[in-house]
Parts: sequence; structure tokens; C-alpha cells
Amino acid sequence: MPRYALKIEYLGTPFAGWQRQASQPSVQGALEAALARLGPGPHNVAAAGRTDAGVHAWGQVAHCDMAREWTPFRLSEALNHHLRPHPVAITACARVADDWHARFSARERAYLYRIIHRRAPLVLSARRAWRVGGALDAEAMAEGARHLLGRHDFTTFRSTWCQAGSPVRTLDEVTVRRAEGPEGTEIHVAVRARSFLHNQVRSIVGSLERVGAGAWAPERMAEALAARDRAACGPVAPADGLYFARVGYDPDPFGSPSTEM
Amino acid sequence: MPRYALKIEYLGTPFAGWQRQASQPSVQGALEAALARLGPGPHNVAAAGRTDAGVHAWGQVAHCDMAREWTPFRLSEALNHHLRPHPVAITACARVADDWHARFSARERAYLYRIIHRRAPLVLSARRAWRVGGALDAEAMAEGARHLLGRHDFTTFRSTWCQAGSPVRTLDEVTVRRAEGPEGTEIHVAVRARSFLHNQVRSIVGSLERVGAGAWAPERMAEALAARDRAACGPVAPADGLYFARVGYDPDPFGSPSTEM
Repeated sequence: MPRYALKIEYLGTPFAGWQRQASQPSVQGALEAALARLGPGPHNVAAAGRTDAGVHAWGQVAHCDMAREWTPFRLSEALNHHLRPHPVAITACARVADDWHARFSARERAYLYRIIHRRAPLVLSARRAWRVGGALDAEAMAEGARHLLGRHDFTTFRSTWCQAGSPVRTLDEVTVRRAEGPEGTEIHVAVRARSFLHNQVRSIVGSLERVGAGAWAPERMAEALAARDRAACGPVAPADGLYFARVGYDPDPFGSPSTEM
Repeated sequence: MPRYALKIEYLGTPFAGWQRQASQPSVQGALEAALARLGPGPHNVAAAGRTDAGVHAWGQVAHCDMAREWTPFRLSEALNHHLRPHPVAITACARVADDWHARFSARERAYLYRIIHRRAPLVLSARRAWRVGGALDAEAMAEGARHLLGRHDFTTFRSTWCQAGSPVRTLDEVTVRRAEGPEGTEIHVAVRARSFLHNQVRSIVGSLERVGAGAWAPERMAEALAARDRAACGPVAPADGLYFARVGYDPDPFGSPSTEM
């Protein structure tokens, strides 16, 4: 059966997360239902990352096996047609080798967390960012973030529900960038690693917010990391601001390096 | 009665437009209902621009008269509280002179039109941008736009329902800018003038899209303008992509120059 890689964008708000569930809407469920309209199943879609409820994506990648050959353009058009009215879209599609795997072939994953720093409630970006009302020092956050770079035991920064065998991960990038947007000052936290633990990004961002607010000194990020204790983590940041931005493969099945961020 | 200037952000999608209507939701209606919760009316809010159905705003400005003195902070907090769950927020508030007028004191108005250039349906920016699928040449659009700069009879580019006494307006800025965003290539058309005619921005953008698609040569913008004939206009661009970005006053009642765009 020919295999296809799909790049997927979605608004996470109406979904219980990526993963198919018996009684709640999921992105995987919406995609598999669209695939079922194109040919007999069962369709088991594998994805690079199983995002939580409310988490968005610009660059989720999944693969599917089809009963017959499709041109990638026709397949993405047909899927987008059947995905309506769900807020899910296929933004790229490519034929891949039969042993290519969206999850296991992934070389790295990148997330972007979007904070909007203002007093007024969010309107245009409601459910699409985390509004933080008080003062936020982006430079202090950047300083705190640097303590997390590299290979560490991230026990402090993973959910107690995390099922990964090891709490050790290598963060290749944790950058904090200030940007002026039409809705106010935004703070973007970009993280990149081969793989992540459950709730790792939101745990990191929630702790960095404490640094930005002045409640934590930047060095407390290093202390929290060294504690290897979930109780040392700051409050977990809400799902609203988190975007699964990009998955890296060698070579990129979609033909050109992903430069979406 | 003390007068206050309000800077207002809204998602235009659920509204029949800015202006209060008897049987349909409007931004003005939502704001006046919130004001009614703060004190006896009637509350007649005047705005810098009466945006159409579906048009969004980052920087609409209105003024209101209150029965008693409020600190601007308390007034904006109280209004934001009572505006829920409408997608409308007060992002700045200032005490102004009794003869200050949101509409008549305005020195200039700026709009931004957002096109996302891609094949896949919009998801994260659904109803927040105009998706254009075919090829778009931003340089040709910029060349076409330059023909509209300055003082002209804009009969071609205004709605046949436009009630302005004169079709003559002076465009101080019409720029076309290409930007790479996480949802694909975006084309932003920024326009600025003392005042605009009804549907002027959407008529201009719809015609510029024809230039970008190669259906019109850039010079056709000059010919369309010179025709002073509504039939010479391209298709009117949808409301989804239009943002009322900024209103300029001398001095700015909100204290600092608006730099939102």
C-alpha cells in the first residue's frame, strides 16, 4: 500500500487532543474519518507528536497508507474537502517510502509558545495565546531559559502522567523573543529537541513566566532543574498558547527545508 | 458629563458591523449594552469608523459620556467585564475634553488587509484573512497600488451605496508587503488616509488581487481610477481580511503615538 506523509495544521480548541478517543472529538479521529471517505480502512494514522487538548499545530506530520495510488495534490485536496468543517487542514502531502514513519523517522521537533502581554482580554487571539497581565521581563526569561539548554534530567518539567521511559532529554534550542504585534507586546518561546516529555514545554513556559514576572530569579530555573522534583516546577502554562510548529526529517519529505517559524 | 476615548479591538465575524441595528448584533450595540450596566443612559457611542459586517479592528476609537467620573483604568476594566462573552475588548481608555470627538477629531485612519496565499483552507486564521489560492505577484501589486497614491476621484473604488458627498479622497499610503508567516506567504496591503469611502479598501484590494494574479497589468489600476466608473472595479475583496488598524489624533489621547501596525 502506498504511504503518504501529511503536514497538518489545526486549531486545537475543539479537540480533546491529537489522539483518537472513543467519545470525544480528536484531530486523529477527524483525519481518519476523512480518510474513510476515500477508501476502505481501517485507517491508522501515526503522527510525529500527540498534542494535548487545546494545543494547536502549524506543522504536525502524520502518515497514512492508501489502498491505491494518489497524486499528493489530489489526496490533500480530497482530504481537505472531507475534513470540513473541522478546523484541520492538510498543508502539504508527499509520497514516502513504505518504511518511512512520521514518528520514528523524525529527527527533531519544534514548538512555539505565544504569550500576549496585556491587561485586556484577548479577542482576535482568544484561545490562540496565553494572556499575561502583569509586567514581564523577557530578558530575565531568556536568561532563565539558557539554564535548560542541553542534555538534562527533566523530571521537574514533565507531567506526573508522563509515560516516557527516561526523563532525560536534550534541548537544542530554548529562545525567548519579544515581538511587537497588533494586539500588544508578544513574547515567543521557541523550543527544539529530538523529542519531548509530556507537558515539558508548558511546564518550562509556566516556570519562565514566574521568572518574567519577577517572582523567580533566573537562576531558579537551574535549581528547579537540578531538584529533579515535579514540585519544583512553576504552574503549567495553558494549552492555548502552544503550537506544534515543525518536525524535522532527513531528508524532508515535503521537498524543501521547513522554514515556518 | 465627563467624556472618555476608548480604543477598541474586535473580531468582526459575529457582527452585522459596527453600527447599532434593531435586530442584529453589532459592536456598537455590545458596547452600549456594557455601558448601560455602568450607569443610566441613553449611551450613544460615536466611533472613528463604521466598519462593515465581518470587518475586524485592532484600533477602532470611540468616545462615550459618563454620568460620573471614572479613572480610565477602572472604566476599561468594568467595560471589559461586561463585554463578555462578545469578542470585543477595550485596549486603552483616556479622559478627553468635552468637545473631543472620536470621528471629527480624527486626523487619519489606517487599515490593514491580510491575504494568505496558499491552496489549503484556512484553519487558525479562518475568517481572519482572505485565502487566495493561485499565484500572486506582490511586486506587480505594489506597482499597481502606486497609481492610487494621492488625491483622486475614487468613484471606481467605492460602493454604489456610498453616501459620502464627494468621491474625492487623498490616499497617503498604499503599500503592499510580502511576509512569511507560519500559515504560508502573506501579503499585507496597508492603506492610510484622512478618511475613506464605503468599501474603498476592499475595492482596492480586490482590484490589486487581479493585478497579482496576472489578470490585470499594473497600469490597469490607473485606467480603472481614471474611468471614474464603478464597473471598472475588480471584485470586492471579502470582509474577512480587513482590519481597522489605527486612528490618528493630534495629540494622541492615549498618550503615545500608535505604532500597532
